[in-house]
Order: sequence, then structure tokens, then C-alpha cells
Amino acid sequence: MSKFIAPRAPKGFRDFLPETMLRRNYVLDSIKDVFHLFGFEPIDTPILELHETLFGKYGEDAEQLIFTAQHGRSTRDPLAMRYDLTVPLARLVGQYESQLNLPFKRYHIAPVFRGERPQRGRYREFWQCDADTVGVASMSADAEIVIMMHEILKRLGFPQFVIKINHRKLLVAIGEFSGLPQAQLPDLYRSVDKFDKIGAEGVKGELIKRGIDDDAVSRMMDLIQSKEPGTGSLDLIAKTIGSEDNGLNELRELADLLADASVGTEHFDFDFTMVRGLGYYTGPIFETVISEPNLGSISGGGRYDNLIGMFRRQSLPTTGTSFGIERIIDLMDELELYPPRLGGTLVQVLVTVFNEETRRASARIGGQLREAGFNTEVFLGRRKLGRQLAHADKKGIPIVAIAGPDEIKAGFVKLRRLTDGQEVVVTLPRLAETASEMLHAD
Amino acid sequence: MSKFIAPRAPKGFRDFLPETMLRRNYVLDSIKDVFHLFGFEPIDTPILELHETLFGKYGEDAEQLIFTAQHGRSTRDPLAMRYDLTVPLARLVGQYESQLNLPFKRYHIAPVFRGERPQRGRYREFWQCDADTVGVASMSADAEIVIMMHEILKRLGFPQFVIKINHRKLLVAIGEFSGLPQAQLPDLYRSVDKFDKIGAEGVKGELIKRGIDDDAVSRMMDLIQSKEPGTGSLDLIAKTIGSEDNGLNELRELADLLADASVGTEHFDFDFTMVRGLGYYTGPIFETVISEPNLGSISGGGRYDNLIGMFRRQSLPTTGTSFGIERIIDLMDELELYPPRLGGTLVQVLVTVFNEETRRASARIGGQLREAGFNTEVFLGRRKLGRQLAHADKKGIPIVAIAGPDEIKAGFVKLRRLTDGQEVVVTLPRLAETASEMLHAD
Repeated sequence: MSKFIAPRAPKGFRDFLPETMLRRNYVLDSIKDVFHLFGFEPIDTPILELHETLFGKYGEDAEQLIFTAQHGRSTRDPLAMRYDLTVPLARLVGQYESQLNLPFKRYHIAPVFRGERPQRGRYREFWQCDADTVGVASMSADAEIVIMMHEILKRLGFPQFVIKINHRKLLVAIGEFSGLPQAQLPDLYRSVDKFDKIGAEGVKGELIKRGIDDDAVSRMMDLIQSKEPGTGSLDLIAKTIGSEDNGLNELRELADLLADASVGTEHFDFDFTMVRGLGYYTGPIFETVISEPNLGSISGGGRYDNLIGMFRRQSLPTTGTSFGIERIIDLMDELELYPPRLGGTLVQVLVTVFNEETRRASARIGGQLREAGFNTEVFLGRRKLGRQLAHADKKGIPIVAIAGPDEIKAGFVKLRRLTDGQEVVVTLPRLAETASEMLHAD
Repeated sequence: MSKFIAPRAPKGFRDFLPETMLRRNYVLDSIKDVFHLFGFEPIDTPILELHETLFGKYGEDAEQLIFTAQHGRSTRDPLAMRYDLTVPLARLVGQYESQLNLPFKRYHIAPVFRGERPQRGRYREFWQCDADTVGVASMSADAEIVIMMHEILKRLGFPQFVIKINHRKLLVAIGEFSGLPQAQLPDLYRSVDKFDKIGAEGVKGELIKRGIDDDAVSRMMDLIQSKEPGTGSLDLIAKTIGSEDNGLNELRELADLLADASVGTEHFDFDFTMVRGLGYYTGPIFETVISEPNLGSISGGGRYDNLIGMFRRQSLPTTGTSFGIERIIDLMDELELYPPRLGGTLVQVLVTVFNEETRRASARIGGQLREAGFNTEVFLGRRKLGRQLAHADKKGIPIVAIAGPDEIKAGFVKLRRLTDGQEVVVTLPRLAETASEMLHAD
């Protein structure tokens, strides 16, 4: 016990001190409130899953990053640490189907683990925040997801954001119409996925280099860059390739449902260059970008009708969204979107202690404030008053209560608001009322 | 992706479906509210720590139960999974000391991992819930911990509970006074620790079997069984062994501070047979038991002034408590302490969908209810009305909104309260107000 060890967390892992936790919890609570409003309910699954549950699901490269776990008395069941929240959802639906009411709308906010090379903004343990609707094929479910994304980003205070919407079937249809051989569709996705980084010319060049016919590439590039206000670009593409079974009708339905919910056209945008991953999605796909300043993607999602079938004899249609909360939390800081009232502490009043003789009286004052509902710290150390005030100031506690021997004898307490120095001397029966006034006055 | 795997969570690990999560969150939120009231603030640390941080801290037997983790590209830094929340606290204090304001009052609610043999009520992944004050030697900090334990158990609704209080120094002093050789003190603790299970005679027999002198054992047994109301038993022991440096004065101070905070004497009890572990605590120790019915211990704690020194050149006095939340959650069920309003779902209103033509109208009604702040599910599947009502009933949703084509045309919605069948037909502008009345009427 006595050997000194220089303390550190492992590389790629983080500690959260109270001030940071307040901000994280503010973001998570805001998101949860909206999840609840839309009827999504929480679940949790173990951090350790069976090896067989996780392996074979993410591809070989990703498997290299899955942490496995064992202990000195391990005998069987090799275990592995949760890599995302989607495979656990699929397992849960397969395992508890008889207890779940379909449609099953769940959210899951929890840490996942990936042995990636740590770098700025990329961690080995990070939180994911997913909401999904299992068991509904209709666009009503997808629309609800987009309406909810919109509501969450508005509440968090992001001033300029756009939810880009595309459809996986449309990408296939455009590729096929343009004359791309079926076998080269994956190349198409891979290149188009870089559109934001390398631009139209970059994508075009890459596709031609991959040996795809020049004309086909040009036709495809024209189509995916269709840009008209509202559903205009849907009409434009339909004029060329028709609307049958290519996702266009579903996107139109989606647009109607978003309009019904007053999601402003400045906040969603059909963008046929947006791809989001390769083999996963089967219907509409979504991605939210902060457009001004251009800060990239903060949430995504879409329909994946085949995934739940991993642990079930038949799949169930599913659509959902995942918020990049680590990124959102960083951006909230950068854009100063946290409400000032959040401050750096939950403590509302610090009751100072004048000397050892008055300590019990200060504790009683603290008790009275707590009974009235104030988050109250009674200073527990032995420090001069000045140091106690500095403690309050450093932590950002808004109000301090001061009671010396004379005040205590006379039944008075002095309340000082540290933001502006305002002081009020009150009798004990008026303590809570005055503290409340000082806290809530602006 | 297509191979079918029978889904299961590993043995000793649990999934939490929404109804269970609601109950867990109710308990955790109630506890957090009180932590905040007392000025404790949240932190979090990684689930994976460095091997060197965890090993050498818990003893060899426990080390066998620590999960270690690695991935396919692991190169260095062997990692291990959090075994409790106390060693991470010690590391955190050592690592961030310059950023922390002492006294540092933190709480930490998070999962820990132990490769124990799974059995009823014992899991390999379970949550701990700790609150500790670092940097205060005075009994004010210990008293605050006990007052907070008392407040939490009252709020959770446990009708009969007693916080047993003892002092590690007192156990040592009683042992020494009774004439037990220093070397046999650990045997003393080990036997007395079984007092609740094997009774006074059992403990006595065991100590004599260990070769401790009969008279010493009798003297000791008389002292530790001192039972007088309030601080009477402290006086009784003081009469025999004095009060100098043996914890009795600290326990008296504690009793005064608890009385100041109106902690009723029916809720705390000096119990000198209560031991709590062996080498860990250095001052007052606490343990809460549910006394009626006799359901054992649900929280514990005490002062441990040497532990924080593991990662620091000098230790810091620390006292705290740990709530056995897995046990508390089970007991809340057993004793039916959850408030009925908690129900089985967060959803307050289910908006049914009459047919595909009215689906958009139902979605708009749902949007209106959400705007007014109601947690609202719009039924997304394709089911007859009866099945939708059964869905609401099975989930425990209190209100359903029904709008057929005629109602929609006329601008009406029917609200039905499922608990008593009450029905009200309202115009859209009166929808939110009526839903609120139906929800909150009792």
C-alpha cells in the first residue's frame, strides 16, 4: 500500500472531473429529454459480451480493435468488450423478443471500446448515444428519427445545421442507370463517400482511374449533384430515371412528414453525394453537419433492415440515429453553447465556518438550506475565511453564507453573492427565501 | 451476417429492459439528488486502467478476479478492468491534485467488474455508488456522510433502517485492554465480524479455539456488547477503558452532530460488534441495515486515512460511503417502495392510428402533444385499433388518443384513460390541457 506510483490513466482513456461532468451531463440530459418526448426508452446491456456475439460482425480490420477480457480464474466463455451499441441491440431483440412490444423504441447511452491509435478527438473508450425503432418498415419511423434529430440539435443550441438525407436504393439505381457494372458499385460508394474531401473532380478522376467508363461516370456525377430547392431535386432525378422502387417515393413521403412537423427546409437537404458506410444501410440515410462554421458531421443514421437478423431467424425493419456525443460536447465548448447558468459546480451555497467554536452553528445553517432544497456545501476544512471565499470563487459557487460568533448569537446570517458582491444580512427564518432571491435574480 | 447465433449475454452479466431501467434510474436519481444537496459532485474514470494501477491493491485472492484486457494490435500498457471505485479515486486525487479544490467531495456511480462465481444477487458486472470527502480529518465530514445516508434511505422510503456506527480505534483499544496479544487482533476482527451470523457464543467459542485466553475473551465480549440508549454505551465503555485516543470522543462528537441534524436515535446505533473489513478503515465506520424485516446491509462506509496515499507522496484523510445499489434495487422491489406513478414506461400518451389515410393526422396530433411537453408515442406499426390499445395497456401507457376519419375531419380527438376507462372528446386547441388534467387527476 505504501509504494508510490506516479498516477496516470492509460493512453486514449479519460478522466472527467466535476466541471467536465456537468457539461457532459447537460448534453446527455438534453438529449434524453427529447428521446423521452418521442417515446424512446432506455436500455442497458453488459460491457462484456460473449466473444461469439461480437466477432464476425464488424469485419477483420475492426476485429483487431476489439478488446477481449479474462481473469485469473477464467475457465470458459471468452469475453469481449462492447464495440458499438448496434450489435448488442440486435442480440437483445433476438434474446428477449417475447418480452418486447413491437414496435420497440429504445435508446442506449453507454461507453464502447476500440483499440484504435489514440489521437485528438479519438479515444479508446468513448460514449455512444443511439436511438432506434425496431419493427417498423414505414417512413413514419424514419421521419420521426429525423424530426427528433432536428429537435435535439435545436435544443442544444446549434445555430446552423443541416440534416443531409439520401437513400441507399437511390445510389444503386443511379449507378445502374448510368451504366456502372454491378461489380463496381462498391467502388462507386467508396469514391463518392470522399465527395466532401476531394470534390466532384476528385471523385470523377478516381472512378475513371478505377477503369469505369467515362460516360457512365459523367452521367452518374450529373445525377448525384442534382440541386433544386425542397423536393425539386427528387423531381429532377425522377425525370431521368423514374420513381419506381428506387427510394425517390420514400424520400418524397419523408419530405411531406417533415413539413407536417414544421422541420424547416433550411434544416434538411437531399444530398445524393452523401454515402455513410458501405454494407449496412438499406433505405433512407441521414447525416447532420454543422454548416456555419463548417465543423463536419455530428450525428448520423438511417434504415438498416437486415442487421437485427444476426440473432434472429428473420430480420426486423429498423431505423435509427447515433449522436456523436464526444464531438458534440467538444463543439458545444468551441461554440460556447452551454447556458451560463450551468457554471462549473452544482453547489449553490457555501456556508463558511468562522472558527472551530462556530462549526456546529454553520452545519445547522447548512442543514436548513438543504432542507429548503439548496445544494449546499458547508466548508469542512480548517481555513481562514479568505481562503474559504477563494474556494467558493474558484469552484464558481454563486452564494456564500457567513456567520461569525456575533451573528450566530443574534440569529443572523450574512449572504454574499460572489458574482456582484451584493450582501444581505438576514434572520434565520428568512434565510431560504433570501438565498432564493439572490440566486434567481439576474 | 446471415449465420444464426442463439443470442445470450455471458453468465453473471445482465441486460436491462426499459421497465427495469426506469426503476434503476429512479433509485440512482434519488441518490444523486441527495448527493447534490450535500455538495458532492460527479466524476468519472475509465473502465480500463493500467495494470499497475489495479494490481497490488486488493490482495492476491481478489487479483485473481480482476479482468485484464487486450486487443489484436495491443503493443504495450497491459490494461485491467475497474474492480472498485476507490482505487480510481486515489489515482485521480494523486494525478489531478493541483486542479482539485480540497476538501474534494465527489461521487461516482459506475459499473465495476469482478470474475466471481455468479450466483443469486452476485454479478460479474455491477454498479457501485460511492460518495467520499477527501482532505478533511474532522468528524464534521463523517457526520455529513451519516446524515446523507440517513436522508437517502428516508427518501427511498425504507421504513425501518438503522445506521450502525463503530470506530476502528475502539476495537483495537478494547482488544488491547482485554489483554489480547497485538498479533491476535486480526483474529479478533475476523471472529467478531461473524457476530451477526454465529452470535456471541459462536464468537466466544471461535476465539477460545484460536487459543486466546478465556478471561480476555470474556472481558472483550462484555465490552463490545455494551448496549445503552443513545451515547450511554459510550459512557459505559469509557468507565472501563477511559476515553483517551480510542475513538470514544470522536463517536461522542459524531452523536452531537447527528442530533444537530435531527437524525433520530431510532435510525443510528452504536454497535461495537460491527467490524466491516480488516485493513482498510482507520476511524469511524458505518453500516446500514434494514431491521424490519431483517434484510441485511445496504450501505456502508467509514474513514480511511491511508488509502489515498497509494498514488501520492503523502496521504489525505478521507471518509465516505458506498451504497449497495444492486441490493437496494432488489429490496425496493421486494418491499414495493417504488412510487406507483413510476409505472412501467416513460410514455404518457399513445396516439393510435386509425388507418393508413389518417396516419399523418395522428403524427400531427403527436407533434402537438410533444410540443406541450408530453412523452408521446405515435403508433408506428400497422395494427388494428384493438391491438394498439393492447400495446398501450401492456406497456402501461396511461392515456391513449384516438382519432378516426370523422373526428379528424371535425377537428376532434378522443382521449381515453386506460386506468379507469374515462373518455373525453376534445377539440385540438384543448388537447394538451385535457391530457394534463387526465394525467394528473387521482
